[in-house]
Amino acid sequence: MTGLVTCRNSRSRLLFVTSNMNKVLEAKSILGKFGIVFKHLNLKYPEIQAESLRVIASESARYLYERLSNPLFIEDSGLFIDALGGFPGPYSSYTYKTIGNNGILKLMEGTSRRSARFESVVVYIDSPKSIHIFTGVVKGTISSTIRGQKWGFDPIFIPEGKSQTYAEMGFDEKQMVSHRRIALEKFAFWMVKKL
Amino acid sequence: MTGLVTCRNSRSRLLFVTSNMNKVLEAKSILGKFGIVFKHLNLKYPEIQAESLRVIASESARYLYERLSNPLFIEDSGLFIDALGGFPGPYSSYTYKTIGNNGILKLMEGTSRRSARFESVVVYIDSPKSIHIFTGVVKGTISSTIRGQKWGFDPIFIPEGKSQTYAEMGFDEKQMVSHRRIALEKFAFWMVKKL
Repeated sequence: MTGLVTCRNSRSRLLFVTSNMNKVLEAKSILGKFGIVFKHLNLKYPEIQAESLRVIASESARYLYERLSNPLFIEDSGLFIDALGGFPGPYSSYTYKTIGNNGILKLMEGTSRRSARFESVVVYIDSPKSIHIFTGVVKGTISSTIRGQKWGFDPIFIPEGKSQTYAEMGFDEKQMVSHRRIALEKFAFWMVKKL
Repeated sequence: MTGLVTCRNSRSRLLFVTSNMNKVLEAKSILGKFGIVFKHLNLKYPEIQAESLRVIASESARYLYERLSNPLFIEDSGLFIDALGGFPGPYSSYTYKTIGNNGILKLMEGTSRRSARFESVVVYIDSPKSIHIFTGVVKGTISSTIRGQKWGFDPIFIPEGKSQTYAEMGFDEKQMVSHRRIALEKFAFWMVKKL
């Protein structure tokens, strides 16, 4: 789509900081189409407790930039269920590890209001005063059973207008409706225009 | 029990940083018996995401000390339910605000393993390299219905050896078996010895 987007020297090459290899693959596939190259830094970093993914990810990006002094981006996502007041939201990973999909389905038993949304937030930072946030939101519903084998809440989330859960879709099909793809694409369009 | 524990001038008087007035009352009652006087600083502060209350509270204490440069303590607590892999644990406040006691009881429906523990962590800091942690743990079980009117998960937690939930007990009775009292008393004994 455009020329290769890299910084002038290797020390300031764009970094994607994450300890989740699935995110790396998804980002490579999406940003690659825009000619954007990044280096993966496999690192866990602190996240604050807050109800907004934007706040959590911005704080983490600031923390990382202070230590790395290098342009970087991170991604955070969560499932927000309306009938549960937004739960599990920012604590989706912990909730998945503890009560899992079975726990969510149990909480939703007898609930006809099954609307939910998956949110992804990509935060890019290249100076202490320059933070840019890109969000992807996919609305959908919570299924009544676990359908499909993938990680996280993918087996219980049916995107709007579809009949399959995220987990029942193939990689390409999922990417077509993925909240993370939307956020990463917004970031990519912005990066390409910026240069 | 001993003389008044204060620092040499008012600028370095011991601070208790919390936005929760109930914690202030509990701390005044317990530390007061030891002659320990503190100043309440009504402030919300960042907490990181982690599975251990000790880690979360230590990081917050460091953060506050960096900004206030004054001896201070904070308290954090959570309910850890064995059958739910420790959930809600460090995210007890958020979980209470979203799915509440009804949500926890729903998750526990049909579960005979009802063991749980309430944990309290008090962290005291008086220099960047001097952090002291005091914990209070009370084992118990999750009730099958909501019993009592108090805040948080008190209406569904029955301490070991008791038949009432935390919420059904009066203030004094609750303090006798409170996880927060245990942690605050450990802190008080240590403070008194220190001086």
